[in-house]
Amino acid sequence: MTQIEFAKKHKISPLINRVASLERSSSALISKLLREGKAVVPNNRLRRIKKPCAIGKGLRTKINANIGTSTDKSQVSDELRKMEVCVKYGADTVMDLSVGGDLRQIRKKILRLSPVPVGTVPIYEIAVNAQKEKGDFLKFTAGEIFDVLESQAKDGVDFFTIHAGVTRQSLGALKKHKRVLDIVSRGGAILAAWMSRNKKENPLYEEFDRVLDIAYHYDITLSLGDGMRPGSILDATDPAQLSELNILGELAGRCRKKNVQVMIEGPGHVPLNQIHKNVLLEKQICKGAPFYVLGPLVTDVAAGYDHISSAIGGALAASYGADFLCYVTPSEHLRHPSVEDAREGVVAYRIAAHAADIAKGIKSELEWDRDMSIARKARDWKKQIALSVDPEKAGRYRSSSKPHLFDVCTMCGKYCSIKLMEECMRA
Amino acid sequence: MTQIEFAKKHKISPLINRVASLERSSSALISKLLREGKAVVPNNRLRRIKKPCAIGKGLRTKINANIGTSTDKSQVSDELRKMEVCVKYGADTVMDLSVGGDLRQIRKKILRLSPVPVGTVPIYEIAVNAQKEKGDFLKFTAGEIFDVLESQAKDGVDFFTIHAGVTRQSLGALKKHKRVLDIVSRGGAILAAWMSRNKKENPLYEEFDRVLDIAYHYDITLSLGDGMRPGSILDATDPAQLSELNILGELAGRCRKKNVQVMIEGPGHVPLNQIHKNVLLEKQICKGAPFYVLGPLVTDVAAGYDHISSAIGGALAASYGADFLCYVTPSEHLRHPSVEDAREGVVAYRIAAHAADIAKGIKSELEWDRDMSIARKARDWKKQIALSVDPEKAGRYRSSSKPHLFDVCTMCGKYCSIKLMEECMRA
Repeated sequence: MTQIEFAKKHKISPLINRVASLERSSSALISKLLREGKAVVPNNRLRRIKKPCAIGKGLRTKINANIGTSTDKSQVSDELRKMEVCVKYGADTVMDLSVGGDLRQIRKKILRLSPVPVGTVPIYEIAVNAQKEKGDFLKFTAGEIFDVLESQAKDGVDFFTIHAGVTRQSLGALKKHKRVLDIVSRGGAILAAWMSRNKKENPLYEEFDRVLDIAYHYDITLSLGDGMRPGSILDATDPAQLSELNILGELAGRCRKKNVQVMIEGPGHVPLNQIHKNVLLEKQICKGAPFYVLGPLVTDVAAGYDHISSAIGGALAASYGADFLCYVTPSEHLRHPSVEDAREGVVAYRIAAHAADIAKGIKSELEWDRDMSIARKARDWKKQIALSVDPEKAGRYRSSSKPHLFDVCTMCGKYCSIKLMEECMRA
Repeated sequence: MTQIEFAKKHKISPLINRVASLERSSSALISKLLREGKAVVPNNRLRRIKKPCAIGKGLRTKINANIGTSTDKSQVSDELRKMEVCVKYGADTVMDLSVGGDLRQIRKKILRLSPVPVGTVPIYEIAVNAQKEKGDFLKFTAGEIFDVLESQAKDGVDFFTIHAGVTRQSLGALKKHKRVLDIVSRGGAILAAWMSRNKKENPLYEEFDRVLDIAYHYDITLSLGDGMRPGSILDATDPAQLSELNILGELAGRCRKKNVQVMIEGPGHVPLNQIHKNVLLEKQICKGAPFYVLGPLVTDVAAGYDHISSAIGGALAASYGADFLCYVTPSEHLRHPSVEDAREGVVAYRIAAHAADIAKGIKSELEWDRDMSIARKARDWKKQIALSVDPEKAGRYRSSSKPHLFDVCTMCGKYCSIKLMEECMRA
């Protein structure tokens, strides 16, 4: 039985019990959300995950960190180090987006070592195999697509990004309504190029039932990818994006019918004043399916700081109801991220998700701020540092700049307002 | 005549002409906003500013960068370097918050070298003088307060933060309704402590007409400080904050009557879902006076990353109508900021303000994103880097990780979606 089937039979699986306790929620609630398609628990039935999680309505906003080799940099040890750092700083899931080196070996290592759910974009391996075997990464067949899905499923992958919404119809919308940037999704572009070259429909769409069969068999969560996500804020919420979203809504319905867990991927680059609308549209069109957004970036000009431009959008999206944030690192648009870039990205997202969760009214999150503020009032520096989102950095900053007076900081020194008020409030 | 008087007589001063051209706006509009109290142009009549600006309704969101020595670090050269870096990366004004070294000499240097408007918080010098002369920074008289205001005005300071809202009444609200943190404003705490020790009303409130006389004489813009701003998100929008805001609204009215330019300072630490309300309240209570916010930080736990936690709040506040953002650096709550901290702070705020301006519909801002996206499509790396918010950092990232193929980056390498789509869209 898949987790949805358990939920539909009102049975609580051991996994749901574990997740509920980790979420500080109730098994009954998680089960209800699964049943209604409003939450997912990505966990391949072949894999035991140390820290599984539920992603969905009313739950703590989750964060995904992308790791994986590139064609230029393919040291798996770096990627494992990134995974370690990301999980330490609050990533709830990781996605292995490797395209360099021995993909299967890398994936297996990540799956063996990851304490959190692992996702992939199988079309990458399909393209990389074609490149290796046939010298052309677009030379793959529909059959080969499903072979890779099956083999990744057997390896234990917990969730798949499937770009099934890049279809003749959504590509038609893209061609009809000019964009500044066309497709910026790597998987989306591979499929669009394949379709264009072969004059065929997208096999992931046309044979979506085969995707469903594999997902059902291994209880893999499908993350319906947004190949048409805008890559410039000028393209946001345009006909191509909406055409694809409608297709994803239809496919989400088919997932539910087959008892396959599903979430929906979203943009991308979106101006601040269109984020609310984007969340509302997804929730309406996809009947409350969890929304997994990449950022969104609220401007196109912040290369080098896209962890910030996208943490702004991510915080806002989550506060409006997005459930799952895919981090963006400072190296976005410039280079394959370093371990340090990954750390900066995940911390920025921890802040964004936490700020949104406070806005959503998740009580346990507010306790963290209360504890910090109490430590701040007491000028208990050890505690303030321990409670910081990144204690190492906070500790480094403090020790780099020691005040003459031990109980204040070098910003205000003896003019510390908190210290001053201690006396004043007693009077 | 003050700028407001010019505006009231429907005369366009040379300053307003210059500002309008720098703002890509019309002199008539700036003049109308000044007349209505919906914008300010901080510029002491004794000072000629290279890059003056208008702060207010419908204009590009402005950014202030705080600089200044501390009691622990008082190298003026570091502060001048910070000013240079902040202005380079987009600060529209600076505030000299020095409390260490020879304050007057430092201020004069900053005023001589700053190409942008300069603000101060005069109560700092008042306290520092008392400490030097009497060994107790609370030993100052009302007369000494106005002497310092006058002397700073003569030096050419363009705007003053005046904590005139810390009164018996707002302090009463603070004591009646318990907070996690009481007063975290340095100026606010000094005044509260002075009032408590001397059992007197705040002279800046009680003798506000003297403040007005000085401001009028030099055409200094008053920035009514929020001594009661929350220092924890748990204290946001509480009775003490609102009591002070009501007082500031009343004082803003008195400024208008005296033809003195005025803006209102705002929080601080505010949960994401209370930011809109905070902007609406200020605009309503202060009759559309420009709103100058510090962040706000959307969580208390991000020490080391408060430029990010507050850029989230700042972007949101500005998109709702806040006009002026005071930057926060990554060192906030931990140490006196370094030059590098200041750079990171101002860039984060440039992103936040820009994102908000796009949401506000300021057309020239969107052109920047368009140009970047066109460069991205063309894979014109030189142009992408030049158009980045911090070209040095973007260039450093790119050159640290050179791809095998010259026209892509090491993130996707040959699987570059933009490159792939070029072919596909031609087909």
